[in-house]
Amino acid sequence: MAKKKMILDLDTGVDDALAIAYATAAPDVDLIGIVASYGNNTLDICANNSLKLLELLGQTQVPVYKGLPHSSTSDHFDVMQVSKDIHGNNGIGEVQLPEPKRQVEKESGVDFFIEAAHKYGKDLIIVPTGPMTNLAAAIEKDPEIVHLIGNVTFMGGALTVEGNVTDVAEANINQDAKAANTVLSSDLPQTMVGLDVTLRTLLTKKETQKWRDLGTKAGKAYADITDFYIDAYYNLDIDKNGCALHDPLAVGVALDPSFVTTIALHMKVNYGDKNYGRTIGDNSRLNDPNPNVNVAVNVDKDRYLKQFMSYLTGLFEKH
Amino acid sequence: MAKKKMILDLDTGVDDALAIAYATAAPDVDLIGIVASYGNNTLDICANNSLKLLELLGQTQVPVYKGLPHSSTSDHFDVMQVSKDIHGNNGIGEVQLPEPKRQVEKESGVDFFIEAAHKYGKDLIIVPTGPMTNLAAAIEKDPEIVHLIGNVTFMGGALTVEGNVTDVAEANINQDAKAANTVLSSDLPQTMVGLDVTLRTLLTKKETQKWRDLGTKAGKAYADITDFYIDAYYNLDIDKNGCALHDPLAVGVALDPSFVTTIALHMKVNYGDKNYGRTIGDNSRLNDPNPNVNVAVNVDKDRYLKQFMSYLTGLFEKH
Repeated sequence: MAKKKMILDLDTGVDDALAIAYATAAPDVDLIGIVASYGNNTLDICANNSLKLLELLGQTQVPVYKGLPHSSTSDHFDVMQVSKDIHGNNGIGEVQLPEPKRQVEKESGVDFFIEAAHKYGKDLIIVPTGPMTNLAAAIEKDPEIVHLIGNVTFMGGALTVEGNVTDVAEANINQDAKAANTVLSSDLPQTMVGLDVTLRTLLTKKETQKWRDLGTKAGKAYADITDFYIDAYYNLDIDKNGCALHDPLAVGVALDPSFVTTIALHMKVNYGDKNYGRTIGDNSRLNDPNPNVNVAVNVDKDRYLKQFMSYLTGLFEKH
Repeated sequence: MAKKKMILDLDTGVDDALAIAYATAAPDVDLIGIVASYGNNTLDICANNSLKLLELLGQTQVPVYKGLPHSSTSDHFDVMQVSKDIHGNNGIGEVQLPEPKRQVEKESGVDFFIEAAHKYGKDLIIVPTGPMTNLAAAIEKDPEIVHLIGNVTFMGGALTVEGNVTDVAEANINQDAKAANTVLSSDLPQTMVGLDVTLRTLLTKKETQKWRDLGTKAGKAYADITDFYIDAYYNLDIDKNGCALHDPLAVGVALDPSFVTTIALHMKVNYGDKNYGRTIGDNSRLNDPNPNVNVAVNVDKDRYLKQFMSYLTGLFEKH
């Protein structure tokens, strides 16, 4: 079986770090690049975190491209305090990793999306787990790519549950709702992995202890990074029972859609003043044929968690 | 097979009139009573409309009970202008029907709910297609009934699409969001038939012409009543392709849940100032077991419409 070509678009971030590990460990994927975004931290720090983690996992062949430094509707980006509280000031739970030897690529992440869409077409899966700014910019620069790319499986949004920034807005979408609307209302074949399912998929220190027990560098680093996140979930009263596996669930669903049950809808995102960042079915297209967004509304969390632990523990054993 | 005992809670209303016809025509149901609500018109007019329609259809054995005249959070009710525009000033499309011979019952609709819950238990289906005021009052008066009643299948709410009063609120829920929250957040086994599915289920004048062609009193009256509604949908730009079968779809789903696909959630309704009337999953109970609200998110509209026309045309042929 030909491996799927995957690009991650990350604002790394603790759960982005877990997404890198999942995509690295999965046997049926060829991770052809990571595009960096702002979000959990600044663009530069997020890009550097991805490079550090790739080196930790022995994946120095994977290039990292810089995307855009702020949303499509602003001229700068400041890291929110809550992002620092959840992911640490450095984005990866205050864990210190060696400076990476490999540098970010000269080519922009936006152009890399366009180039990969033309090169790989239906074999290409893009997994954005931060703001949609980069992918929206690529679509605006080359609208044809929405008919080329195989699938976009993104972590973001909330359809059947409340948001985590406001009662309607999830954090990634909230960073750039206009860009999110460009992507969601386009003809791109998409799967939305939002709070509807990620808040049901929890990891605990029982699991991270298994990584720590491996005695490897990656096992210890990932246990420390993730424990910071689990503590933040506890201390900020987000969830007392563990941390949500937001971003790695999106990677898992991109590779095996059967982890979730979905409903197909034509979607839109509010980007005006009213209910900014709400991801919702587009009533004006409710009876149009072939809705192109599969929204995940339930998840086989036990089977997913088993796969997640099998992949990540196996990976950390070797590094 | 024992027939299911059904109570309709109606604010009659054009689509409520269609719900009465569906429940009358369906062979597997024993319509044991109609509880009247305010909503599409005042309580008294809605109750009288139900009596008139039952007589038109030869169903004078069905008692009609009066519920409460206004929402749980107000002391009066005024019919909204948009309700008059959609349902006519008299609630049934300006069609004049003879005054009914049978009168409303002396017993209150709220007490009738409680009595029926104790008498029929799991065999009882309640189908509210207006505000939830009456059912919420019954639950508050006798909380035990939530564990007795077999199922509540209601028309109301919007989960995956926008509302029709505000961008989050559907009209029935909007009348009394606090009452709706009492019902939706209770342990009652429920099915929500909201705008998610009813806006996909359209009737046109092609169908009503078949009723008119029957040459019967009921066929002509129902064609006139429904054509008023189809015209209103067209003129108010709600839908140019037909009228939504809101209330009769709820009756159909109550009798045959396989018309819709559902997702199971613990639900709540916002009744504060913010996003008043929004029906949404309750994040605080997202990982609790046995969610008790099945929310309809897709519908086999062709199969439903076929059943709907078979039932109603067969009924109107005889009256």
